[in-house]
Amino acid sequence: MVMTIPQRILVAPSGFKESLDAVEVAAAISAGIRRAIPGVSITSLPMADGGEGTAAALACATAGRIVHTAVTGPVGQPVDSHFAVLGGPGLPTAVVEMAAAAGLALVPSSLRDPGRTTTRGVGELILAALDLGMKRIVVGCGDSGTSDGGAGALRALGARILDSSGSEVPEGGAALTHAVSVDFSGLDPRLTGCSLELALNPYNVLCGPQGVARVFGPQKGATPQQVEELSHGLEHWARLLAGASGMTEDSLRYGAGTGASGGLGAGLAAIGGKLVPRFELLLDSGLAGIDLDAAIATADLVVTAEGAIDFQTPRGKVPAEVARRAQRAGVPVLAFAGSIGKDAAVVHAAGIDAIAGIIPIPMGLDQAVAEGAVLLQEAAERTFRVLLLGSAISSRVAAAAA
Amino acid sequence: MVMTIPQRILVAPSGFKESLDAVEVAAAISAGIRRAIPGVSITSLPMADGGEGTAAALACATAGRIVHTAVTGPVGQPVDSHFAVLGGPGLPTAVVEMAAAAGLALVPSSLRDPGRTTTRGVGELILAALDLGMKRIVVGCGDSGTSDGGAGALRALGARILDSSGSEVPEGGAALTHAVSVDFSGLDPRLTGCSLELALNPYNVLCGPQGVARVFGPQKGATPQQVEELSHGLEHWARLLAGASGMTEDSLRYGAGTGASGGLGAGLAAIGGKLVPRFELLLDSGLAGIDLDAAIATADLVVTAEGAIDFQTPRGKVPAEVARRAQRAGVPVLAFAGSIGKDAAVVHAAGIDAIAGIIPIPMGLDQAVAEGAVLLQEAAERTFRVLLLGSAISSRVAAAAA
Repeated sequence: MVMTIPQRILVAPSGFKESLDAVEVAAAISAGIRRAIPGVSITSLPMADGGEGTAAALACATAGRIVHTAVTGPVGQPVDSHFAVLGGPGLPTAVVEMAAAAGLALVPSSLRDPGRTTTRGVGELILAALDLGMKRIVVGCGDSGTSDGGAGALRALGARILDSSGSEVPEGGAALTHAVSVDFSGLDPRLTGCSLELALNPYNVLCGPQGVARVFGPQKGATPQQVEELSHGLEHWARLLAGASGMTEDSLRYGAGTGASGGLGAGLAAIGGKLVPRFELLLDSGLAGIDLDAAIATADLVVTAEGAIDFQTPRGKVPAEVARRAQRAGVPVLAFAGSIGKDAAVVHAAGIDAIAGIIPIPMGLDQAVAEGAVLLQEAAERTFRVLLLGSAISSRVAAAAA
Repeated sequence: MVMTIPQRILVAPSGFKESLDAVEVAAAISAGIRRAIPGVSITSLPMADGGEGTAAALACATAGRIVHTAVTGPVGQPVDSHFAVLGGPGLPTAVVEMAAAAGLALVPSSLRDPGRTTTRGVGELILAALDLGMKRIVVGCGDSGTSDGGAGALRALGARILDSSGSEVPEGGAALTHAVSVDFSGLDPRLTGCSLELALNPYNVLCGPQGVARVFGPQKGATPQQVEELSHGLEHWARLLAGASGMTEDSLRYGAGTGASGGLGAGLAAIGGKLVPRFELLLDSGLAGIDLDAAIATADLVVTAEGAIDFQTPRGKVPAEVARRAQRAGVPVLAFAGSIGKDAAVVHAAGIDAIAGIIPIPMGLDQAVAEGAVLLQEAAERTFRVLLLGSAISSRVAAAAA
């Protein structure tokens, strides 16, 4: 009886939000696989997605460095933040992770009001990168705690956002409805000599039924009424940005990625920022220093993962992107998830052949988050035992048929 | 590329305690498998284990009938109970499920004190079976809420258990320490013309470090101090039973199955009851009308399940018994569990090749119990997709090697 088991496995996961970063996820999965298949060859490619950990991952991959600096946090308090200066040839390049200045994790639970949080710190990080002479600034979008349409960031860069009495409107998305004009004349002149590129999920748009306030507002702490107010404010905001930038209102409202990070996409697009699908920028441009497609091509199986797998996964999440590339190469895909949510089965159409959860017994979210690494390793071992069982049965059935 | 997937699957699960009976578990697993492998041939053999559902399962399997009767419940209240009169040839046979008269599910949470609960109702069921002229009475042990060493049952059958003043000691395991003599002279004379057989887990013994009070006391509601008191009481009880029956103290303390159902094993052994490993009685004797070994022999894969799989599983639980027989036949085994507990990996040595959980996201026990059927079906589908993936990779790797 010939028994054939996977020889070369690629592990290319996302991080598990609030529990494990992508490097930790890859390590836990790999350890579990090795317990089930001792001696298997595993290639580990933790995936940066623009969100938390992206700057550190890219600094590491390119032998660059992390610059630490304090900026204005999402609720106005100072926060210790950072950005990456990449190593390697080419233009002096910085990677600014918006979550490091305005991420949801920086918003205390008691203050989760996306009508008030600001992206000002993101603009301050861009200024700090300009201060270091950077000529290319990549802004990683993801894990934001804001919904201000990038208004805070624009202001930090020198824009003015005025109400009918000529005063600056307050910070946050809720105040945007009171703005009557946007003035870009005072923008930092160094921006014109710098390529500003946003790495984002192109499925995120500013307005409409799939607009950012409706899709992400609730998880940032918005009530249903606030969601409607924020949606209305962002519609209005697109009109003001169009007037100040010369872009069309529709391109700001419905353009791919305009809704990224609570509308930061639209805000920075209005001052010339390029909105780029994140995997195109992070993977295909070589920015991250990894070649996912090459790694897939030599694998028998690709394993990916994300904290949650659900109906939103096909909308530009890491497992869907990994699966899309694996499917193109004809390599099967297994995905682990801390939480297998509503309608997760839609991912099969996106090229994910099988999904495995990590929760062994009834337990609360806090425990699952705290014990994430152990749960994931044990689940990987269990799941690979099932996979090996499939392989063994295959050999058994084939032998019986022969 | 030849792809070989399981063609014939045997589903032989236990019930999930307090959530699904074995028939429901088998149905949920089968439905999930069919979603992953349409058209697969599935044989379903829900397993009776002596505990809850055993009488109904055996009445059904033998075209017998259920007799309803009220008995004294574990906390002294009357409860609606039942036993099975089996169909088919041979001696008139009843199956008394001890859990139907003294099960943990009949003990209100607020009254979970195994020092006070009684097996009196089990004796009353045996009397009711004798009233119907039964000549063979099988007592299914499992899921008990008692720890009285069978004292209550013996009393219902006519035994006297006296303290130093010549009075009957109170019901329950805690009072056993006050007993000074056991008198079997008043036992119902019909017992002598009847074969009394207990279907039990032979790993359960009355005394010692693996004694029933220590292993099961806590889940029946005993505090650590109560566990010690009950252990001490059962040691003493074995001495009294030995005196009354002529059996040795050690055979009552450490004999296989003496600890079954809180010591009911020892109590009924002392009046001539035969303690039989449950699967020997329920499967091999033909009592249940099913032939597990024959079903295993024609399967590509055996799927079993239990509410919890953990370090105790190899100690005579359904998945371990199914796996033992499958291993003997060289057929691989997959086990589902609502809860994958401590050191579950020990089951691999017992012939279970792979384990799969059913919990997709962090959730409490109540939700998991309430949604058991859906969770199990979805988990079966997910797990069989992993198994098929293993099969596909096997074919892929074999093709690459050819």
